[in-house]
Amino acid sequence: MALTSKLVDIHTHIYLPRYTALLRSRSSVPRILTTTSPLTGAPEDRLLILDHEPSGGRPVGPQYWARDEKLRFMNTHGIDVSLVSSANPWLDFLPPSEAQTLASQLNDDLEEYCAGSPTLADSPTLKRLYGFGLLPLVPGIPVPALLETVQQISKLPHLKGIIMGTRGIGSGLDDESLDPVWDALSQAGLVVFLHPHYGVEATAWGPKDNGHVLPLALGFPFETTIATTRLILSGVFDRFPTLRLLLAHSGGALPQLSSRLASCIDHDPIVASRLKHDARFYLGQLYFDAVAYGPEEIGFVSDVIARANSFSASTKGSGFISADRRLGSKRMLFGTDHPFFPPLNSTEKWRSVVENLQAIDAVSGWGQEEKDSVRGNNALALFGLI
Amino acid sequence: MALTSKLVDIHTHIYLPRYTALLRSRSSVPRILTTTSPLTGAPEDRLLILDHEPSGGRPVGPQYWARDEKLRFMNTHGIDVSLVSSANPWLDFLPPSEAQTLASQLNDDLEEYCAGSPTLADSPTLKRLYGFGLLPLVPGIPVPALLETVQQISKLPHLKGIIMGTRGIGSGLDDESLDPVWDALSQAGLVVFLHPHYGVEATAWGPKDNGHVLPLALGFPFETTIATTRLILSGVFDRFPTLRLLLAHSGGALPQLSSRLASCIDHDPIVASRLKHDARFYLGQLYFDAVAYGPEEIGFVSDVIARANSFSASTKGSGFISADRRLGSKRMLFGTDHPFFPPLNSTEKWRSVVENLQAIDAVSGWGQEEKDSVRGNNALALFGLI
Repeated sequence: MALTSKLVDIHTHIYLPRYTALLRSRSSVPRILTTTSPLTGAPEDRLLILDHEPSGGRPVGPQYWARDEKLRFMNTHGIDVSLVSSANPWLDFLPPSEAQTLASQLNDDLEEYCAGSPTLADSPTLKRLYGFGLLPLVPGIPVPALLETVQQISKLPHLKGIIMGTRGIGSGLDDESLDPVWDALSQAGLVVFLHPHYGVEATAWGPKDNGHVLPLALGFPFETTIATTRLILSGVFDRFPTLRLLLAHSGGALPQLSSRLASCIDHDPIVASRLKHDARFYLGQLYFDAVAYGPEEIGFVSDVIARANSFSASTKGSGFISADRRLGSKRMLFGTDHPFFPPLNSTEKWRSVVENLQAIDAVSGWGQEEKDSVRGNNALALFGLI
Repeated sequence: MALTSKLVDIHTHIYLPRYTALLRSRSSVPRILTTTSPLTGAPEDRLLILDHEPSGGRPVGPQYWARDEKLRFMNTHGIDVSLVSSANPWLDFLPPSEAQTLASQLNDDLEEYCAGSPTLADSPTLKRLYGFGLLPLVPGIPVPALLETVQQISKLPHLKGIIMGTRGIGSGLDDESLDPVWDALSQAGLVVFLHPHYGVEATAWGPKDNGHVLPLALGFPFETTIATTRLILSGVFDRFPTLRLLLAHSGGALPQLSSRLASCIDHDPIVASRLKHDARFYLGQLYFDAVAYGPEEIGFVSDVIARANSFSASTKGSGFISADRRLGSKRMLFGTDHPFFPPLNSTEKWRSVVENLQAIDAVSGWGQEEKDSVRGNNALALFGLI
């Protein structure tokens, strides 16, 4: 069947025009600043997402907001379907009422963006574009406002999930007052795409100028790792076992630290007593994008997913069981991180995309079926597109 | 030959009696506080290493300072030889002159501690204990004082390396003023054991009480990852290719984030221009303890070591080459983290130790030779004990 060869990108971002207008109007980060190019004298847009952004921010253009550019990028790289999400920092910096209004408007905008996209030539029931909506997750927002937005999104036919950062409504995602939100998201069958924005305190990077390398390469995955670990420790996955959480950047460092995490929990009886399972079990309940840039990394993530069931409460203590790496492929999904990591030189295909595709193809122990799953079949199933 | 079956622990700590006396004399962390046990009414020593230590600190006893206890632990677990290092936070909190004097005294103390240990019954040229010395790495210390201590250690026959934290002399290990220290350590053939202490800013852990779990499970490995990445970016491994750096806790998250790191560097031409090789190459120049608690983690670290040579400047761009996982075993070394992670219940063997041994034994793709290397042969070779 034709569907077995689809390429689906589940990690691809946009700043919707309504949002870029807001970024242009702002005088502090996040903002888009129009300056004059020192090289050409022409006006140049620069995006400043974080405080102390190196190099005066990153140059931005229509690839950050125009649907045609998204489709062009998809065509160049053979991507059939994209699940588009707003890029960080979402609505984090807004007061509650403004965040709520804008979330609702941006969700409608994204629905229109997706609904108006072409259908696939060989699968006319499929659009090229689907989306992750936004919740107004800001300090001070009343939980009912969040639930209302969940309801809004669940009724928008092209929105299949939500993207969120790690701060919740101010105290992180392990805040128990978010339980009704996890419940509503589970009930609505919306996938939660967890994505970093803040990294860790910039003092960790030291005084040397290494551009964006340290916050992006390390800070981003650390943030995802911390947020997911705090979710595990808070028992969210015990209370909401049908919640579908998708982790950006292959879960950051969580896979590699998961056995250490389990050991640290084992040595703390109070924390251990709160959880139904060994920490490693919960990694098998999660979904991971395959944005890890190397076949060994992707294969390893697949290993930790595959082994997870051997760490359920019922099997715990039976020792290390060698798991079939192929099983883990069912919870990993191709992504590009477009429009970030653009190529430095004019080139047909983006290196960041090509590398992730090559990495999937080179995973040792995966056959054609596993690779096709990760490239697209898992996404079609997870988001209910088949 | 008998040596092929030795078990060598390269990650095992001590607070030497001279150091515990200092900790007992202090009124702020790090300190040892003698309180009365609420259960038994007997006096009880508690160690407070970090600010805001949960649970009033950890109970400590002779296993933290007595040689007999170290040997008893080794006998219980079949450990033939241990390379003992002072536990964090070393001398970090002392003014320069005090740090320098104490470093020198503690190095002499550790030499005596090792020299006075028994020899191995079946290998009478080997002692049961060897050690990592200390440098007075504190802000304000003159570099010549550090070099003097390197010379001292290099003349103490049972000290085979040094242990260090991540702050250097105040600006981190990527501080170029440490270049003479790296040079001296390389020349002296001393192994540098890089070990975390500070983690990341505690605000990352959120308001919920999860005991030590988050700072230990995540903060410690993050710190090692950041420090090693900063070393890579600073070009230290290009300038000192014979430097032998051993990373605690299997390098933290560095292996899993190394391809992402390489991609981030590739997208920053200024940072990329400073390095001779792809970031992944440098992981093959490092040594990793096998304190990772799971066979998949250990096997993955072995993979990233094995693939490193395919990312040298001369081979870069040739695509992903599937490397033989067995090769990576040559740079991994068994460790216990004793006396931390003690068992909760009275038990003959420590779970944390048993798990790491079982994990080594269960690594998929490793044969007897690789497992024996990691359990002891690599350490005997690296520290010049055969």
